[in-house]
Amino acid sequence: MTQWVYAFGPSLSEGDANQRNLLGGKGANLAEMAKLGLPVPPGFTLSTEVCTYFYANGKSYPSELESQVDAALTRLEGDMGARFGDPENPLLVSVRSGARASMPGMMDTVLNLGLSDVTAEGLAKRSGDARFAYDSYRRFITMYSDVVLGVDHYLFEEQLENYKLEKGYYLDTELEADDWKHLVDVYKQIVREELDEDFPQDPKAQLWGAVGAVFGSWMNMRADVYRKLHNIPASWGTAVNIQAMVFGNMGDDCATGVAFTRDPSTGENVFYGEYLVNAQGEDVVAGIRTPQQISIAGKESQESDQPAMEEVMPEVYAQLDTIRGKLERHYADMQDIEFTVQGGKLFMLQTRNGKRTAQAALKIAVEMVEEGLITPEQAVMRVDPASLDQLLHPTLDPSAERQVLTKGLPASPGAASGILCFSSDAAVDLHARGEKIILARVETSPEDIQGMHAAEGILTARGGMTSHAAVVARGMGRPCVSGAGDIEISGDTMRIGRVEVKAGDLLTLDGSTGEVMQGEVPMIRPNLSGDFSKLMTWADDLRDMAVRTNAETPGDCETAVEFGAEGIGLCRTEHMFFDADRIGVVRQMILAESVAERQTALDKLLPMQRSDFEAIFKIMGARPVTIRLLDPPLHEFLPHQQSELEEVADLSGTAVEILASRAKKLTEANPMLGHRGCRLGITFPEIYAMQARAIFEAAASVQSVSGQAVQPEIMIPLVSMAGELDVLKRLVDQTAGDVEKDTGVAVAYSVGTMIELPRAALQAGQIAEHAAFFSFGTNDLTQTTYGLSRDDAGNFLGQYEKQGLIERDPFLSLDPDGVGELVKIATERGRATRADIKLGICGEHGGDPASIDFCQQVGLDYVSCSPFRVPIARLAAAQSALKARG
Amino acid sequence: MTQWVYAFGPSLSEGDANQRNLLGGKGANLAEMAKLGLPVPPGFTLSTEVCTYFYANGKSYPSELESQVDAALTRLEGDMGARFGDPENPLLVSVRSGARASMPGMMDTVLNLGLSDVTAEGLAKRSGDARFAYDSYRRFITMYSDVVLGVDHYLFEEQLENYKLEKGYYLDTELEADDWKHLVDVYKQIVREELDEDFPQDPKAQLWGAVGAVFGSWMNMRADVYRKLHNIPASWGTAVNIQAMVFGNMGDDCATGVAFTRDPSTGENVFYGEYLVNAQGEDVVAGIRTPQQISIAGKESQESDQPAMEEVMPEVYAQLDTIRGKLERHYADMQDIEFTVQGGKLFMLQTRNGKRTAQAALKIAVEMVEEGLITPEQAVMRVDPASLDQLLHPTLDPSAERQVLTKGLPASPGAASGILCFSSDAAVDLHARGEKIILARVETSPEDIQGMHAAEGILTARGGMTSHAAVVARGMGRPCVSGAGDIEISGDTMRIGRVEVKAGDLLTLDGSTGEVMQGEVPMIRPNLSGDFSKLMTWADDLRDMAVRTNAETPGDCETAVEFGAEGIGLCRTEHMFFDADRIGVVRQMILAESVAERQTALDKLLPMQRSDFEAIFKIMGARPVTIRLLDPPLHEFLPHQQSELEEVADLSGTAVEILASRAKKLTEANPMLGHRGCRLGITFPEIYAMQARAIFEAAASVQSVSGQAVQPEIMIPLVSMAGELDVLKRLVDQTAGDVEKDTGVAVAYSVGTMIELPRAALQAGQIAEHAAFFSFGTNDLTQTTYGLSRDDAGNFLGQYEKQGLIERDPFLSLDPDGVGELVKIATERGRATRADIKLGICGEHGGDPASIDFCQQVGLDYVSCSPFRVPIARLAAAQSALKARG
Repeated sequence: MTQWVYAFGPSLSEGDANQRNLLGGKGANLAEMAKLGLPVPPGFTLSTEVCTYFYANGKSYPSELESQVDAALTRLEGDMGARFGDPENPLLVSVRSGARASMPGMMDTVLNLGLSDVTAEGLAKRSGDARFAYDSYRRFITMYSDVVLGVDHYLFEEQLENYKLEKGYYLDTELEADDWKHLVDVYKQIVREELDEDFPQDPKAQLWGAVGAVFGSWMNMRADVYRKLHNIPASWGTAVNIQAMVFGNMGDDCATGVAFTRDPSTGENVFYGEYLVNAQGEDVVAGIRTPQQISIAGKESQESDQPAMEEVMPEVYAQLDTIRGKLERHYADMQDIEFTVQGGKLFMLQTRNGKRTAQAALKIAVEMVEEGLITPEQAVMRVDPASLDQLLHPTLDPSAERQVLTKGLPASPGAASGILCFSSDAAVDLHARGEKIILARVETSPEDIQGMHAAEGILTARGGMTSHAAVVARGMGRPCVSGAGDIEISGDTMRIGRVEVKAGDLLTLDGSTGEVMQGEVPMIRPNLSGDFSKLMTWADDLRDMAVRTNAETPGDCETAVEFGAEGIGLCRTEHMFFDADRIGVVRQMILAESVAERQTALDKLLPMQRSDFEAIFKIMGARPVTIRLLDPPLHEFLPHQQSELEEVADLSGTAVEILASRAKKLTEANPMLGHRGCRLGITFPEIYAMQARAIFEAAASVQSVSGQAVQPEIMIPLVSMAGELDVLKRLVDQTAGDVEKDTGVAVAYSVGTMIELPRAALQAGQIAEHAAFFSFGTNDLTQTTYGLSRDDAGNFLGQYEKQGLIERDPFLSLDPDGVGELVKIATERGRATRADIKLGICGEHGGDPASIDFCQQVGLDYVSCSPFRVPIARLAAAQSALKARG
Repeated sequence: MTQWVYAFGPSLSEGDANQRNLLGGKGANLAEMAKLGLPVPPGFTLSTEVCTYFYANGKSYPSELESQVDAALTRLEGDMGARFGDPENPLLVSVRSGARASMPGMMDTVLNLGLSDVTAEGLAKRSGDARFAYDSYRRFITMYSDVVLGVDHYLFEEQLENYKLEKGYYLDTELEADDWKHLVDVYKQIVREELDEDFPQDPKAQLWGAVGAVFGSWMNMRADVYRKLHNIPASWGTAVNIQAMVFGNMGDDCATGVAFTRDPSTGENVFYGEYLVNAQGEDVVAGIRTPQQISIAGKESQESDQPAMEEVMPEVYAQLDTIRGKLERHYADMQDIEFTVQGGKLFMLQTRNGKRTAQAALKIAVEMVEEGLITPEQAVMRVDPASLDQLLHPTLDPSAERQVLTKGLPASPGAASGILCFSSDAAVDLHARGEKIILARVETSPEDIQGMHAAEGILTARGGMTSHAAVVARGMGRPCVSGAGDIEISGDTMRIGRVEVKAGDLLTLDGSTGEVMQGEVPMIRPNLSGDFSKLMTWADDLRDMAVRTNAETPGDCETAVEFGAEGIGLCRTEHMFFDADRIGVVRQMILAESVAERQTALDKLLPMQRSDFEAIFKIMGARPVTIRLLDPPLHEFLPHQQSELEEVADLSGTAVEILASRAKKLTEANPMLGHRGCRLGITFPEIYAMQARAIFEAAASVQSVSGQAVQPEIMIPLVSMAGELDVLKRLVDQTAGDVEKDTGVAVAYSVGTMIELPRAALQAGQIAEHAAFFSFGTNDLTQTTYGLSRDDAGNFLGQYEKQGLIERDPFLSLDPDGVGELVKIATERGRATRADIKLGICGEHGGDPASIDFCQQVGLDYVSCSPFRVPIARLAAAQSALKARG
């Protein structure tokens, strides 16, 4: 005979936590808690197989079900010392759904089942609290009518409101026993009018009605939509849990509360919770009465004058504290528990892993390892890598007041305050005078780099999460709010609705929420405790992939090394070109008409680039440093103003008008797909030759001083065919040979390429013949694979997310289906040609945990990300490695 | 015993044309001609296996080789009645290389071998022409010394020049026998001085020296580079051909000539050729003497006063004419032959398929089918599809004088003359007044469409072969010269170097060469003779793929149908938006801030679009018409001038400043990757709904009048994920249902998508669930696969071609490795999901024969191209089908 019904409770527990598929999540957990010996209100579960049967057989039940339910009820009555429908001591139960996967709020629940005119009176007598009895009864009628009988609950609420109006009551708590009793009659009348029959008085009939309603709710529209969204098959079915009711509001020896086995905001190993005497669960959260602390320590730290549960119900508290230890040992994680005390007796209603702040997660994970509760592997899996962001940046004091002006996109985390500034030049000047700056721009361009560096935070009116401002700000670790569309900037004024903010006014940004606030809001500094470094050490031991950083300034390199970067995965040489004392020469180079003219400018740039690389090599020591040769379209460097043109005219001796016309010729329709990357190297080999020379001279000089070999990896960008790399590798090799002859120092280096175009991914087999490494430039690869400009996607990508066409911005999290397939193809073809080719990723995705997981699956050797994301990547890589091991 | 040596000639021919691998191309052909009974000067071939042996055995010969050569020499002496080294009657031979694949000019040749002091004297006596004998001897010494002995030929030329200077001679022909005899002594002295030994006098020693030099030349650097470039394995080796010399310059019973078996410029079936009495082959081409016609008919048509060969040597001519017929029957193709007459005896030196004009190719192919010489299949293979272009456009009269101002890119074929015009508006006005216009612009944009239509030809200063101007011009069949970089346009004047041309001046363009000419150059009109339509009918019977056209104006549709288009593969709806009476409304639509505002504009556009589609459906009848919904970034339509903004302000009742600021917001950094294609349909569904309604209403109306079902295929552009197509297909289906309800007419239609992004290709399996057809938009697919903007590629793609990095512009000929692999992937995945999915190509590549061949290999159902390329595509598709059948 099939077992359709499974008991749980002190006397018998037939299931356990592993039987989610059969008993649903709730049923399995209740059985598990009971097995642990916790005082769970007893009950029984109708398995998911009943549901399956129900739908496979025209909504009928298996023939054995009724007798199995009867038997379970009888045991339940025994356990509770109460009987269904007994006027003296009635058994009340809850009927709840519980599917394999959690579907919060999607299906229906009925509480207080078993109440009728007779048993309500009995409950009043037995509890000595008629108000409680009739309040419970009217709640039951409302719920049951709504869920089971299909009578809209607003009909009842309407009558309740009318009655309160009539009586001059404001709150429900003002209603007395007789008021509720009167309303019960009114409610029953409503049911009679709506359905033409009486509200059922037989508890068994009530029970079967509720069971049928829960099974029926499995297929309601809400549940159906939810399942589709979360990919839950309808065939799984739901279980139904029938559990004895317990009440925390039956007198002063009753109570109800919620607690965490450790402090969920700090992670401290203290028992943290709140309770209320003579109250229901909802009272604790409703805020009408102020909940009290459960422990004396908690009471003291909160400076509360209300007694702690430890004082009021010391035995129950002791029992709860014992359970706390048992739960942590059993689940090996911090638990969030709900309990009720009825007549001095403790009942555990629920336990589950508790939500916690990033800091608490870290502390709990590390301390549980030290307590021997979990392994370092488990600790590493317990902390959400993305949450580390909260620990690495200053944050707004949550208790501080704030005047939010508008909200943009949370483009780069952390908070910043400073005086408002509308141009990069002004930002640089004010910063030099010791001011803290918030730089606000319609959008930023590479020419704003200096200003962004000088600023504490960046605000833009246009651009998405991956706009120039967002990407650069994340790279620099500067908080940024981008795309705050309400903002209108004109001259030295910024208008947000009716508010006007001027240059020099104080402003605060929260890059983690996107909020823009007036004035200066107080902050909390990050605290990288010993726990942080312990967890990181475990993570480092576990991961397969190396973690590098995308950095080009000495400051960023130092930060990244501090954060544990094992090398540079992307050093963008173009960022070095925007220095005030260089840009003129760079422009001279770009606007040169002949190779000779260009060489003159390059000769001036060579020592500057060399000193850039010297500084980087000194900091990075023996770590590998991947340097990408000049990549962006030349016109990004072009002069826009007359004064800038005049500077170049002075430097080059060419007339301003000629320069202006040359500059105009460099304009491109689609610069992202234009004359950039290795195309510059092919057409102007002297530029790449200068950069290669600067690298090798710097390496030779640092190496001779330190005696330690540096590891430059020279990376050719935007390759789409093997021939490009072939030609440019020869140029680099030639330059390396020349420099070795000049300096007498041999530098061990390698040459590789970015794989950032679909064609490069497809041709990876051929390209690998010339490449010691591939670095996946997944920003550009995403742009070209989708045909989607990062700068322009903001106009419509939001709509796509709203309509559910995409789950996440593919510039933030690597698209595994399209971009990912190309990465896979390139990996396979590259390795087929050259088994030991080094493979990494240097796009923004290198700091995104889901993308890092993908990189692990594909088998990359390293990920590279902005300095502030290095710890995130280290942890995410460890988690991915653990997942891969299964 | 291995046979290393193979004889050819009247007495014995041991090889034939099929033995190219063994005997090389030349050796196999000589054997074939001899077998045919043609009077080939006899000789023998050392097979390629000798070469292989030579390199495999330290540059030594097989032991049997010498005796086999001796035997072959003996037979040759018998055939010629002359002996090697015989002072009375010396045998002279040529020694030439001949590999499996033709490697013109890559390896060495020695002529007149066998001459020595003794035999030169004998030759002088026997020929009665001492000048001939010593001239031949000095040529032999020069060649042999250079090729075999390694003495630089400039040493000999220097002495010749000195001697001529000394003697006051200007031409070589002024030198007499004694002069040459003297120089022979000087030459021998040079060899002695350079090598410290005498020039070899023994013919056999000469022979082995020459053979060794030819085999040695197989591995010289020139040949090596050539093989690498043409993918010829070194292991193939070369053969060596030793052939008796014959001379056309030994007296008046000698002659030499070249002839074609049919007229190579018209294709007429007449014997066409030239000859010279008492001359060498090089004299016919050198231009010192005017060659005479071989036939009397030729002489008459050329109005020559020189006698024809038919008159001077009637027997030889008759023999040649017989050979002409024999050759055509044998090779079944028009032959280009070289012959020599020595002492009244005809020798055939070479025959090969003759080069011909497009018109001749067509005529010859068709007539040979009618003569039963070849099959229609062969005829179809004989005509180069690309050459049809010459037949479809007017061309410049080749005999007309022309004053070329500059040269741009040959962007769209054909020639055009007209008065110069610098704006589209002016072009439209002047055209309306009956003027022929040449429209010159720095570059064109969609707003120039009307002007381009009004113009006879288009000239741009910027942009490549696939710039807007080039693509649109080819589509319209307008000649176009693009990217003429020397041109500077300012106001109503165009400057080309020092020349200034003004609006209103006459100008001529040749879009097939890129030439820009002053004044009006006379033209020749195209003549689509009956041959053309015969060949096309055969091609149509043979091809597997359908041929459609890219067209959206009634004019283009009519042209395309005339040229044999079987449907429209791409109707770009945006081109319909630029009409002067529409653009204002279009702008109103784009600048609308709300859906309601936008709908107002769309309601005005609906009847206009409907009438567009009605016109097209009427012309196309039952043929399928693929209509692409709005694709380009909206800002392409934006107003640029104040007056344009004011028009929109009038239409919409919105202030100019507001419109200007909205227009500014629409600017994009990379419009090609921006808010366009189906992204417009997702964000502004009302636009696509209007277009779909216009299509269905037009279809319903045309269908009700004609009683014939039209075949609209609605195409969604720029899809990158299945969800986009799913959403938009629903919108189209919904609209179709609405229109059916409104009109009562059911229209059979299908919905499909362009595959023009790498991600779409990879996701083709999922996308096919919603698509009845895929049309490969290989223009955009090339842009995104390479990360290469068509508009900007001109800045560097030329360099790539020069450096040999790419063979052909990937926008002109589909890149089979990258773009092609994506097409293959999409084809496979699309068919796996939906076996009957219709697959076509609508990028510019649809009219390129190499790309069409690729489409056949991949198994597409149709190609679509601009109207003027439809015949090319029909022929190319037939050839591809034949090749595929093997």
